[in-house]
Amino acid sequence: MTPATSLFSPVETDLQILADNLKELVGNRHPILKAAAEHLFSAGGKRIRPAIVLLISRATMKDKDITLRHRRLAEITEMIHTASLVHDDVVDESDIRRGVSTVHSLFSNRIAILAGDFLFAQSSWYLANLDNLEVVKLLSEVIMDLADGEIQQGLHRFNSSISLETYLNKTYYKTASLIANSSKAAGLLSGVSQETAEHLYAYGRNLGLAFQIVDDILDFTSSSDTLGKPVGSDLKSGNLTAPVLFAFEEQPYLEVLVEREFAQSEDLDRAIELIKNSQGIKRARELAAYHASVAVEHLQDIPPSESRQALINMADYVLSRLY
Amino acid sequence: MTPATSLFSPVETDLQILADNLKELVGNRHPILKAAAEHLFSAGGKRIRPAIVLLISRATMKDKDITLRHRRLAEITEMIHTASLVHDDVVDESDIRRGVSTVHSLFSNRIAILAGDFLFAQSSWYLANLDNLEVVKLLSEVIMDLADGEIQQGLHRFNSSISLETYLNKTYYKTASLIANSSKAAGLLSGVSQETAEHLYAYGRNLGLAFQIVDDILDFTSSSDTLGKPVGSDLKSGNLTAPVLFAFEEQPYLEVLVEREFAQSEDLDRAIELIKNSQGIKRARELAAYHASVAVEHLQDIPPSESRQALINMADYVLSRLY
Repeated sequence: MTPATSLFSPVETDLQILADNLKELVGNRHPILKAAAEHLFSAGGKRIRPAIVLLISRATMKDKDITLRHRRLAEITEMIHTASLVHDDVVDESDIRRGVSTVHSLFSNRIAILAGDFLFAQSSWYLANLDNLEVVKLLSEVIMDLADGEIQQGLHRFNSSISLETYLNKTYYKTASLIANSSKAAGLLSGVSQETAEHLYAYGRNLGLAFQIVDDILDFTSSSDTLGKPVGSDLKSGNLTAPVLFAFEEQPYLEVLVEREFAQSEDLDRAIELIKNSQGIKRARELAAYHASVAVEHLQDIPPSESRQALINMADYVLSRLY
Repeated sequence: MTPATSLFSPVETDLQILADNLKELVGNRHPILKAAAEHLFSAGGKRIRPAIVLLISRATMKDKDITLRHRRLAEITEMIHTASLVHDDVVDESDIRRGVSTVHSLFSNRIAILAGDFLFAQSSWYLANLDNLEVVKLLSEVIMDLADGEIQQGLHRFNSSISLETYLNKTYYKTASLIANSSKAAGLLSGVSQETAEHLYAYGRNLGLAFQIVDDILDFTSSSDTLGKPVGSDLKSGNLTAPVLFAFEEQPYLEVLVEREFAQSEDLDRAIELIKNSQGIKRARELAAYHASVAVEHLQDIPPSESRQALINMADYVLSRLY
């Protein structure tokens, strides 16, 4: 068993139900999307987002079983995430994700846009039918943040003067908002206090930031086999992440390479080398560790349980991916 | 003044406010989308959907002024409609709509997908903030229907054995659902009874069907100048509409031409001729007139007012586009 799956053991059965539901939901309704759905919901994904929702649901429901609405929320979370990946891959013209061909490259732009729209539409509908206006608002905020984040990422490509704040802001929009708001929503469905709900939001927010910063580090330190895409892919596409921003402070030449968008043949390799030879990766790791520890502090309110422990371990797991 | 605008006179000022709001909403937030927004919300559109919402709002509020929520609903309606057009144009690879270049052809697929996603996201968010769960459900149903309709349209391309029922079903999903559900929602925001709300739904449903059937007839009877695209565009792309389905009953050779997807050089012109020489257009017109008259019957509940009269006239206007 991989660390990720043993981490999820309190909700392993829940995650199996979720996987089956998701495939059925999309595939059965539209044969044309069946292949895309099979592809989307089978391969690669670690299902970290629905796992967090389910763990928070169990942790906040104490001994009682979780409700159908908790399950629906977890499904909605994964649907929104998947819809946004499918459209991002078209927009970014990515052919590979997690080592697997993307929907638009395997099928067509047409199918990818339709599948994404259908998933967004489906998730709005399930969301409305949770019959909880506060939860509807939280998750519709997420859908807006995701669109916003993708637009911001496009705007700042190859812009070497962006601040760490701008990067963190974009990272919140693209990754942490979904985890933060769905964590809070899971608590609200269990009837926790507004204060506890805010702590759950802060847990998700900080865990999401740590998670994405780690992902951004792995773009440099991992092998292309593990990544399922070439090393330095983000950098190549002009997506300037924490390790790069920290490295700028030590390596002025890195800015030159970025600003000319790696126009010369050795530019990208040179840039990766400069980043690896700087304190950028170490400092990014410290930033991730900081957010992971803040995340855990926000679980103090939650009564001890196997699921709460898994949520704490999740923070370690996120960092452990770096070793 | 064109018939459409004089028809809207009770809500003319409201529509001006709406147009300004929509442009600001999208354009100001994202410079990258500013040009697309300017393009989307300036050109061509007759704003029939928000006009209906505003007219129903005024008709059901009697003498009182309409609320900010009624205005928001009208804006949401136009945003959802526009988002779906932008994505449909990418999916269908249409370069021209209403005589104006489409977003993806003018900018890029990238911008078109992002702009559509942003509009859908924005509309979900405004929707949630109307603070009315029933309205949220109605409109999220619409978003699902639109995705569904586009998928169905793709599935049935060049399929000469589709029934009139399948066509009407697809037409409901792609056009009438938005008008029907937003009409009902406008009434609900005014606090009408559940029974009146159902009548408003039926008004919108039938008006929407009539509207689309007329649009489908115009694809054959109008000039390419008026259409802003070549005559027979729907047919060419395999979208088989009411005039075609009726014509099949008289012209068996039409089926041959459709089934071979107009592979030979004269096929499309030949098919258009066969349709024009059949009762197809006349019967489609009768079908549209039927739905327009059913629409008007459902306004009996609404107290007389200038806005109610405009809603009745709308049914005539829809048909008058044929002459």
